[in-house]
Amino acid sequence: MDPATLRILVTGGTFDKDYHEIEGRLFFRETHVQEMLRLGRSRLAIAVETLMLIDSLEMTDADRARILEACRRAPEARIVITHGTDTMEDTARILGAANLAKTIVLTGAMVPYTFGSSDGLFNLGSALAFAQTLPTGTYVAMNGRVFRGDEVRKNKSLGVFEERA
Amino acid sequence: MDPATLRILVTGGTFDKDYHEIEGRLFFRETHVQEMLRLGRSRLAIAVETLMLIDSLEMTDADRARILEACRRAPEARIVITHGTDTMEDTARILGAANLAKTIVLTGAMVPYTFGSSDGLFNLGSALAFAQTLPTGTYVAMNGRVFRGDEVRKNKSLGVFEERA
Amino acid sequence: MDPATLRILVTGGTFDKDYHEIEGRLFFRETHVQEMLRLGRSRLAIAVETLMLIDSLEMTDADRARILEACRRAPEARIVITHGTDTMEDTARILGAANLAKTIVLTGAMVPYTFGSSDGLFNLGSALAFAQTLPTGTYVAMNGRVFRGDEVRKNKSLGVFEERA
Amino acid sequence: MDPATLRILVTGGTFDKDYHEIEGRLFFRETHVQEMLRLGRSRLAIAVETLMLIDSLEMTDADRARILEACRRAPEARIVITHGTDTMEDTARILGAANLAKTIVLTGAMVPYTFGSSDGLFNLGSALAFAQTLPTGTYVAMNGRVFRGDEVRKNKSLGVFEERA
Repeated sequence: MDPATLRILVTGGTFDKDYHEIEGRLFFRETHVQEMLRLGRSRLAIAVETLMLIDSLEMTDADRARILEACRRAPEARIVITHGTDTMEDTARILGAANLAKTIVLTGAMVPYTFGSSDGLFNLGSALAFAQTLPTGTYVAMNGRVFRGDEVRKNKSLGVFEERA
Repeated sequence: MDPATLRILVTGGTFDKDYHEIEGRLFFRETHVQEMLRLGRSRLAIAVETLMLIDSLEMTDADRARILEACRRAPEARIVITHGTDTMEDTARILGAANLAKTIVLTGAMVPYTFGSSDGLFNLGSALAFAQTLPTGTYVAMNGRVFRGDEVRKNKSLGVFEERA
Repeated sequence: MDPATLRILVTGGTFDKDYHEIEGRLFFRETHVQEMLRLGRSRLAIAVETLMLIDSLEMTDADRARILEACRRAPEARIVITHGTDTMEDTARILGAANLAKTIVLTGAMVPYTFGSSDGLFNLGSALAFAQTLPTGTYVAMNGRVFRGDEVRKNKSLGVFEERA
Repeated sequence: MDPATLRILVTGGTFDKDYHEIEGRLFFRETHVQEMLRLGRSRLAIAVETLMLIDSLEMTDADRARILEACRRAPEARIVITHGTDTMEDTARILGAANLAKTIVLTGAMVPYTFGSSDGLFNLGSALAFAQTLPTGTYVAMNGRVFRGDEVRKNKSLGVFEERA
């Protein structure tokens, strides 16, 4: 079990939202992924690549095509994607349909990392572990659990992920 | 992939240390594991059992026998043990030698959870994921990585875990 | 110097905003003032009264009349008002014009208390100190400084308070 | 009310303690005062001078003489001293006896700033406000309150400051 070689593809989402203190609203400044890896004292060999910093409700088909292309050309066989929770299942389905010979794990956060009460660090830790151990396929890691990308949905009234009925 | 059924055995360690504001020193009040699971919005079916709250430098053979016994009688096949980092490898070796038909993952923290800069939440997320996915055996999850229990050591000058040479 | 007898009037503002994790937006749940006083280990005899929980951009003349009335009927001679920063100067001017025989200090935060990077606790500490020591009048406490209520403005491009030119 | 010109003299204390993750104990790395002033969005003109970084139980007469000398030669008339809480009253008495024509406010924290539950930021905010508004003299600012330096004691069983009986 040598250090895994992983890639983290950053797409934005609640995970990376900051508070804009002049304008009094949430916005994207830059990703917090590197800072979170330092906090986790990560010794994994990880390449971090920021593809976009957007709310997943605004993610277009073209954005999803870019994410798929980034997965395809990544030299690493194990990939974590940080993503807004609202359309994570849509991106997971598109990536899954491509049947790449890679282990791809999408994760995100219900609360921005910059808030004290964020689930982001817990989710990042679990997503990196699932990415190291699961076989080829596309998955969603949220709430400590892992779901197959084509069997998951966000329960928007409860704010949790669950199996698609 | 239904919610896994896991047990967390709490033994203390840096992970759970608090600051005693009257006496000005670190001490154990109670475990933070439940609070951390709430923060991580965990939806796993987890039983939390506090075996002891001690610094792992003070852990005796009798303590390790109790931990092994708790693993043996746990109804769950997947167990996470929170443990001080200084002797985590010793406990891992004893548990591994018992060859239980269970997946056991030890984890801990370099910095107490109650400090802003703790790696605890990241480690707990990764340990729970490793416990759900790895085959039967005893492991240590630290620094985002996972090690076999009989092949790991803490590099005390760097404060990181690595393969035993 | 016995424990001062103070009243904190809560009106909302950035100070008290929370993140709504289901809806992904900032909102008011309840005030954090009591929690902040506990964190500050306050031993002041303080009455906390929540008048409203609103963004100060939405504060009406009727709201300001309610705040003035609450100052007037407060049994305490020393009052701190938590308030959104955008129209703090307007409320300060109205309260100042009423010439109550009280020391009234408005304060707020540039970043919600629930964010790690909030100035709220610092501002609350300073506002309570100014309220205990300044003579009768209406003041704004922000950025570690104190301003007379009729001589202050928020510099909205810098996000700081300064003397009105 | 122009920006006050203040000096902060740093002496250490719980306020500035960090967690040494290799050695698993509390220690002094450097002061957090500048970081706290940034967090508070302070716009005060403050000179920060680190005199020592020690636990106040280890403070000697020579250390106190250095603090007094630093107060004496400071060009500013308003001084805040960060100090361990255990002997804050002793230093306050020595500084008070010197009868400098300055306003000197000692403050500290019951819990290190690097812990989530610290009172440090609240205390620093209040100490800076008291230093700007109180007349010449030596004071202790803790628990939101201010005490004359010769009338205060730490109640070590409760962990709060109170008037000397």
